[in-house]
Amino acid sequence: MKLTIKRSVFLQELQTVQRAISSKTTIPILTGVKIVLTDEGLSLTGSNADISIESFLSVEDEKAQMTIEQTGSIVLQARFFGEIIRKLPEDTVTLEVLENNQVAITSGKADFTVNGLDAENYPHLPVIDAKNQIQLPVHLLTKIINETSFAVSLHESRPILTGVHFVLENQKLLAVATDSHRLSQRIIPIEQAVENFNIVIPGKSLLELSRSFTDEEEMVEISIMENQVLFKTKSMYFYSRLLEGNYPDTNRLIPTSFNTEVDIYVPEFLSAIERASLLSHEGRNNIVRLSVTSESVFLYGNSPEVGKVEESLSYEKVSGEPLEISFNPDYMKAALRAFGDTSITIKFISAIRPFTLEPTGADLDFIQLITPVRTN
Amino acid sequence: MKLTIKRSVFLQELQTVQRAISSKTTIPILTGVKIVLTDEGLSLTGSNADISIESFLSVEDEKAQMTIEQTGSIVLQARFFGEIIRKLPEDTVTLEVLENNQVAITSGKADFTVNGLDAENYPHLPVIDAKNQIQLPVHLLTKIINETSFAVSLHESRPILTGVHFVLENQKLLAVATDSHRLSQRIIPIEQAVENFNIVIPGKSLLELSRSFTDEEEMVEISIMENQVLFKTKSMYFYSRLLEGNYPDTNRLIPTSFNTEVDIYVPEFLSAIERASLLSHEGRNNIVRLSVTSESVFLYGNSPEVGKVEESLSYEKVSGEPLEISFNPDYMKAALRAFGDTSITIKFISAIRPFTLEPTGADLDFIQLITPVRTN
Repeated sequence: MKLTIKRSVFLQELQTVQRAISSKTTIPILTGVKIVLTDEGLSLTGSNADISIESFLSVEDEKAQMTIEQTGSIVLQARFFGEIIRKLPEDTVTLEVLENNQVAITSGKADFTVNGLDAENYPHLPVIDAKNQIQLPVHLLTKIINETSFAVSLHESRPILTGVHFVLENQKLLAVATDSHRLSQRIIPIEQAVENFNIVIPGKSLLELSRSFTDEEEMVEISIMENQVLFKTKSMYFYSRLLEGNYPDTNRLIPTSFNTEVDIYVPEFLSAIERASLLSHEGRNNIVRLSVTSESVFLYGNSPEVGKVEESLSYEKVSGEPLEISFNPDYMKAALRAFGDTSITIKFISAIRPFTLEPTGADLDFIQLITPVRTN
Repeated sequence: MKLTIKRSVFLQELQTVQRAISSKTTIPILTGVKIVLTDEGLSLTGSNADISIESFLSVEDEKAQMTIEQTGSIVLQARFFGEIIRKLPEDTVTLEVLENNQVAITSGKADFTVNGLDAENYPHLPVIDAKNQIQLPVHLLTKIINETSFAVSLHESRPILTGVHFVLENQKLLAVATDSHRLSQRIIPIEQAVENFNIVIPGKSLLELSRSFTDEEEMVEISIMENQVLFKTKSMYFYSRLLEGNYPDTNRLIPTSFNTEVDIYVPEFLSAIERASLLSHEGRNNIVRLSVTSESVFLYGNSPEVGKVEESLSYEKVSGEPLEISFNPDYMKAALRAFGDTSITIKFISAIRPFTLEPTGADLDFIQLITPVRTN
């Protein structure tokens, strides 16, 4: 294998696949990046137990300025190799596989010789058949991930809850995540004729996926197999394992009739929650209290050792019965951040029943649920 | 005490004194910031075992928009108080001391009440008499600190070496630091008529000092007492304890005759050292090798498990005998960074004797010393 390539472009490819490479793996070859050079171009692969990322750079891609002198393949220790590439002196770099899996890395006057591993020993990625695929704009998939993945459970006691549940049926794609204290659900219409599916994708995989997209990618094709899912863009194949088991029926958790409603502008409410949580974080229970009457909405935080805070909130509309309710401000913060710069309607049943949050007015098919904390 | 003040200005003062406040102190009141309001203005104080910082904001300083309704004083838990100030909703904040050392913090609709401590119980700062003072431009003191403090020892086995040695005599101020493996020394002329001194200031204190200066400060006045030093600017008093004991005589360590000299441009040499250290860091010994002949200068790094690197260096001039010398690249990196964007002359005696680095040509009274590593 011998290749000369523009260093910045190569480094970007390397950084993409490095997202899948952990230095903590027990399989030594997986600390490496697999480099395969064919007449068509350059392919890099990184993998761990959960995800695998394969990037492809075509020889015809002019920005890469590739010169292929000899095709071939090698595996190089990813972190160390990446640091070398980052610090080389010139704009281009030449990689040449020598004897015994040694690789010469040359740029300007700097000559590195590093030890590699035979690419034949690198594990094979799953083969995914092409029959069950949906296509989504990258920005829409990123939005769904941002709206749901923060609500997955971080505890392995119920592994299935560490994933986001995706269900395609009746020409609708539903994505829902819950850690049993809060829930976030998004539904989008799908007009493509594809088979229904019902899968759970690890929340961590989805976060890595959303960070791996570049601005150049517009569409992503999603292919599903029994225990794997592949997200495919023009320049990247992103594989994730699926979680096994039955996801709980979350639909019955979402209430439909309410006694108190508040319309409020998210950024202002979020700032007030952040202030109140400064105090709740110092206390033992980490709760704040919201007091709703027909004339006012107040937020309270209290930590006897440190102090207390109260704040009269600006709101857009209040209706229904007066209410006092306490909740974990960190769940509220995460929920509000997922809404962004908009107004929401918060609907309550009582101080001890979960309440819902939805964008005001627009039927956006985006709903969140938070369980309150009983204080007496 | 009751004060209304522009929040951003108050926050900046608070951040300055917070540099001296540690949450790990065993004296609870020192986790607090002392706030003293007089008719002249607002003074904040933070302190730990090594340094104390006092900032002062005059009532006449228009950018602070201060309204003093009642003078007084209080101590508030610094980290927590700072977070509250940072997150308040409006541009101004009102602080009012209530009964029992409670403090109301109000901004817009947000009302905090936090528990404070009696300022009478806050330790007094040392009183420093004004007789032995020198004045320096802030940028010059910062430069001296950056040129020397990186070379102090980080090990408490010889505490005196954790400080920078400052000696004023013969109208010259000498600053020198060494950890016994490398040394950095700067001399500047002083034209003021002041008493000679000979002190050792902890390296950590100097780093905090250099970070505490703002762009608005032009001159710093340095006052020395038996076991304290005070750095005084227009808006800040910065106290540091001095290290006790005799600093070793470093002057005899600096050689004066040499056998090999290399002139080299710092940024290019630094990049090459950074590349070579990628390999040396993977090995057991962390050394790189420099090979100087009349025709070439080569840098080598080698770590058998990982690989090797060699690089032909661009240089400006070589003279004297050929030489092969090995050294720790991390010492070289730190030394080169202290020189910045310039050319230096490196002077060698032999492979086993310390070598010096100085700015080329200009007689800048700045010299560094690095001890090589014997490889056989």
